[in-house]
Order: sequence, then C-alpha cells, then structure tokens
Amino acid sequence: MTSKEGFRSALKVNPGVEQPPTINSNIASRLKSKKRKLLDPDQYAQGIFNRDISVLSQAITLIESSLPSHHELGQKVIEKCLPHTGKSIRIGITGVPGVGKSTFIEALGGAITQAGGRLAVLAIDPSSERSKGSILGDKTRMETLCNDPNAFIRPSPSAGSLGGVARKTRETIILCEAAGFDTIFIETVGVGQSETAVHSMVDFFLLLMLAGAGDELQGIKRGIMEMADLIAITKADGQNVNKAKSARVQYESALHLFPMPESGWLPRAKTCSSVTKEGINEVWEQILEYVEFTKQSSFFQKRRLEQAKYWMFQTITESLKDDLFHNPQVKALIKATEQDVLADRISSFAAAKRILDFYKSI
Amino acid sequence: MTSKEGFRSALKVNPGVEQPPTINSNIASRLKSKKRKLLDPDQYAQGIFNRDISVLSQAITLIESSLPSHHELGQKVIEKCLPHTGKSIRIGITGVPGVGKSTFIEALGGAITQAGGRLAVLAIDPSSERSKGSILGDKTRMETLCNDPNAFIRPSPSAGSLGGVARKTRETIILCEAAGFDTIFIETVGVGQSETAVHSMVDFFLLLMLAGAGDELQGIKRGIMEMADLIAITKADGQNVNKAKSARVQYESALHLFPMPESGWLPRAKTCSSVTKEGINEVWEQILEYVEFTKQSSFFQKRRLEQAKYWMFQTITESLKDDLFHNPQVKALIKATEQDVLADRISSFAAAKRILDFYKSI
Repeated sequence: MTSKEGFRSALKVNPGVEQPPTINSNIASRLKSKKRKLLDPDQYAQGIFNRDISVLSQAITLIESSLPSHHELGQKVIEKCLPHTGKSIRIGITGVPGVGKSTFIEALGGAITQAGGRLAVLAIDPSSERSKGSILGDKTRMETLCNDPNAFIRPSPSAGSLGGVARKTRETIILCEAAGFDTIFIETVGVGQSETAVHSMVDFFLLLMLAGAGDELQGIKRGIMEMADLIAITKADGQNVNKAKSARVQYESALHLFPMPESGWLPRAKTCSSVTKEGINEVWEQILEYVEFTKQSSFFQKRRLEQAKYWMFQTITESLKDDLFHNPQVKALIKATEQDVLADRISSFAAAKRILDFYKSI
Repeated sequence: MTSKEGFRSALKVNPGVEQPPTINSNIASRLKSKKRKLLDPDQYAQGIFNRDISVLSQAITLIESSLPSHHELGQKVIEKCLPHTGKSIRIGITGVPGVGKSTFIEALGGAITQAGGRLAVLAIDPSSERSKGSILGDKTRMETLCNDPNAFIRPSPSAGSLGGVARKTRETIILCEAAGFDTIFIETVGVGQSETAVHSMVDFFLLLMLAGAGDELQGIKRGIMEMADLIAITKADGQNVNKAKSARVQYESALHLFPMPESGWLPRAKTCSSVTKEGINEVWEQILEYVEFTKQSSFFQKRRLEQAKYWMFQTITESLKDDLFHNPQVKALIKATEQDVLADRISSFAAAKRILDFYKSI
C-alpha cells in the first residue's frame, strides 16, 4: 500500500461532519480590525459552525483567558457548541524528545488532510513541562501542516497548572469539533504528569518509541506503556530498518504479557518512517480499526461518557484542593507540619487532621 | 542453596531491632479479664515495646475503631510509637486468587522466622474487594504461620472505604514496627483499587504470577506490572517447571522494556515453589539485595519520606472530597448535573462549577 492509495479518511467513520466551510466575511472583517471587539455567544458559535478559523481562535483565546468575563463568555460559546461535538476521533500522541514526534505528526497529519480529513493538533503540557520538548512550543517544526488549510495547530496554553491546561485543552476539543475537525491530535511529551490527563480525554493513545535506544534515552515514564493502544516505532528507515523491526517484535510480545485492557483491543506495535512514509498508513489503519471495533462493542461511547463524568469529578476535586493548598495561612501550617511528619513526631494522618481542623476554623 | 543454609535474616540489614520479648504480665493479665478496660497511652506503648502481642492487638483495635474516643487514644499510642519505627522492611505482595498467595506467604514467612526474623502479615483490601480472594479473610489457610510465635497475622479491617482501610493499615505498620517486627508483609488481591495504596506504603512490591495462564486467568489490573520490583512465578514444581521457566524468561525480557524505575533497580522475574521451597530463598535474596542497593543510594530513605508526605496530602484530599460528596443535598445536585453532562447540555467544567458554587453556598 502506498501512502495515498487506500488511505481512508476519518470521515468514513464519522459521517456526521457538516458542509464545507464558508467564511462569514462580516465577522472576519471585524476580527481584522485592530481594536478587536468581543462578539456575542451566537456570533462566536456561528463563526465556528462556519469553520471560520479566526473566530475559532478567538473563542479558544476566551477559554484560555484568566479574565472572569472572558471565561464566562467562553462557557456560553461552549454550551452552544456542545450539541455539535463528539463526532471526531480524538488521538493522544506521546513520545519523548528525539523520537521524531513533529515529523511523525506532519507525516500522519498530511496523509489525513490529503485524504479529505480535517485535523486539529493541540497540546496539553503545561509550560513547566514544555521546555522538556513539546513540539508545539515551536510551531515552525511542522511547517507543512501549518500551511495546510485543512489543519489547525494550536500550541498549549502558555501558563497554568496541569489541571488548568487540561481543562482548556478539553474545552478546545469541543470548539474544534464544532468547527468540523474530524480528527484531533493531542500531543504530550511523555515525561511529565500530563499523560494520564491526555489518556482521560482521548479515544486512542499512541505511544511513539525509538528502536534500540537505551532506557536513559527512552526516558518515558513508567505506566505510560500500559496506556498505549498502539506503539509506533519511529525512524524505521535506512540502516535503522532491521533494528526497528526487531524492536517491534519485542514490544509486541511485551504487550501480549500485559493484562487485556477494558476495551478488549489487544495493543500492537508497528514500525514507521516519517521520511519514506512507510508504515504511516498502517498506523492510521490501526486507529480506524480500533474505532470501528470499539464502536461496535459500544466501548467507544461508554468511554466518552465516563470521561465526561471523570472531568466533572476531577474538576471538583482540583478546585477543593486549590482552595485549601493555596491559602497562605494553611500553606505555612503545612510547611511546619510536614517537618513534624518527616521527623517522626506525628503520623501522616494526625498531621492531616491538624491541617484540616485549622482550615475549617478559618 | 537449600532452604535454610544461607538464609539471611532481615535483622542483618536492620540492626536496630531491640531486645528479645519479655511479657509484661501485669498488662497481660488485665487484658485477659472479661471486662477489658482501656489502658493509658504509656501502658499501650510499653506493652508494644515489650512485644506483648495482646497489647499490640488491642492497640490495633483502637486504631480500627469507629469510636472517636478510641481513635484519639490510638493516635496518642501511635505518637509514642513513632520514634521506635521505620526499622523494618515493608513488602507489598499482590497476586490474583489462584496464584497461591497464602502458601507462598507461608513458605517465605516460615523461612524468615526460622532465620530469626519477626514477621507481621497485614492486609489492605477493603471488605468490598475481600470476597474476590484476599487470603487474610481466611486465616486458616496460613496455619503454620498462625502458630509461629515470631509471626503476627492481622486480617484487613472489616469495614470502610479504601482510604480508611489504607490509613488503618499504615498505622498498624507503625505499631508492628514498634513491637519489633522487622519484616512486614502487606497483602492485596491485585484486582481492585488497593495496589496503588499498597505501593505507596511499602519499600518493595512483589507481584506473584502464574505460568502459562491466559489473560483472563491472570485477571490482574493493568499498571500493576510496572509497579513490581520483582515478579515471582509461583507453582514452579512438578510438570509445571518448564512452563514456569519459560514464563520467567518472557516476563524478564518484558521488564527490560519498561522504563527504568526511579529506584535505579531493574525489576527481575524469578520462579519459585511453595511446595518444594525451591526459589523461595532467591526471592528473599532479591528483596535483601534491593534493600541494600536502595539504602546505599539513599533512595530507600528518600522514598519513605515521600510516602509520609504523600499520606498526609492524600488524607487531606480524601477528607475534602468526603465532605462534599457525602453531603445529601450535594449528592442530589450531582445526580441531576451528571445527566446534563451525559446529554451534552453542559460541559464537564461548567457542571463542576455549578456543584462547587452550590456546595459553598450551603
């Protein structure tokens, strides 16, 4: 199979995507004016439904804003968009720096848009983890995709905790889906805390690995491999082909030793090259096969509903924690109590009680 | 190496264990009276330091009690014990029903006590998970160890959430260590939510596996394998030996593919038989080697301190969550809001905000 023949678009799996884009020139011109005025929720929603990228970007900026008025407006836009969402395939892509993630996303993404798909590429790593190698801090590394009219690339929000970034990314997915993107990539660097968050907002989790790299080089966090629905061994070209093939066999037999995931899908390992494009189609086929398989078993929809509930509960918990742990008085007490715990003067549980009692008293 | 020759006691690694036990007959006789009176914290502590098993059991019962006055007394005992703790090796042992966990614990535990060690066997699974096969619900399956004066077996607390059971188990470790037990086993069934909790309170995590059992039979949860410091393939005897040996090779090569854990210790796989006792010593040698290795690198102590902090923060978070999620009015609103989320009428984040705003208003 060559890189174009037989490449199925996600559209075949998701027939619910709307009409081709028509730019709402009225809105577009307003957005171009230097003193950019805010639109009302209906105007944002209409612009998004019309696949107006400028309006989409503006709406995402609202979601990312720390201004309460922007945030509130953003939530109204999301509510209008919600009934038009859920039709894409959401794919998490992780891999450490050096694995060739940006070229892989260019190769797979290019194939998707050439087959008629519309792709949004988002990132989730908070700024603290970004320096470790998230590609989307550096959009220039995906030049072809950046200039592709059927691709939309949005870097990770520039600040905030993982919880905050995760919220923004998940809400951005909603807006992108309402704007007719049928495939969403969510990129993460695989060395931090973000992978669990990504795993909780995607349908498919793709792990990129290098062949023959030592443990130090791989550097990926423990536990991530068991999340993967597919391991793609990158850079399987030139002198590297045999090494990649033997790595594939090794990883695949390792994956067989893992307990079967709830999806009932046995994760596989494939090789691919972003240079020769060999194997790129196979990765995509695996994703489509997974989607078909899990849609037939209803696991796909079940998982989405579980994720929606998960994020509701997760947000509540994070907010409760923030409230306590960011209180300056509580912070001071925690610091002192922590020392008592570390010196074995008090048990972890008595320490917790001391802090909770104080928090409730203020 | 036979089962006795060369069996090193944990005592060699932990030279801080105190004098041989002397029963405080005064306290012991008081405990034997039918109308059992509570002691004062100093009496409990003294009894525990004297390795009086009756007093130890009484103190654990205080910790497990739901009566606030008992709980408070228990905390005072713990504070007195804390300076005398931390000298044991804490070992998590997990494996699904059928893996031969009780006979394994009998074999390894017997070897430890015969070599002069003192062993406490605790369990962590809350009652809801117990029925799935926790051995300690059925003490009779470890008859030899039950009658061993150097072994102390305490079943899992009979009721409560995982958070509650985890607290009780962790506090029981403190009391057992103060009573001179130099090796602590914490047993869990490997099919529920308890493994992360166990992993966060032990120095070494041992996973028992069967050779050649299918995925269904293994039934173990994803993610557990990556927590293991050692995989022991049980029932490597009779006709099963070759199958076990080939499973060992498979698991060991799979373990090599995992990212290196923070400890710097590359997890291994071993075979053993609780019937012939073959391999039991090797499992113990692995544990002692791990302890020596991580003590030299200071990882051992670093991890213990991290765990103490972890449980402080974990307890605070759990308490905040309980307060909100167990409120009847909030519960009703969550139920209704959940439906809005599932029907795409509201985003997960707006739903969370609605619930939080209501919670803060009551």
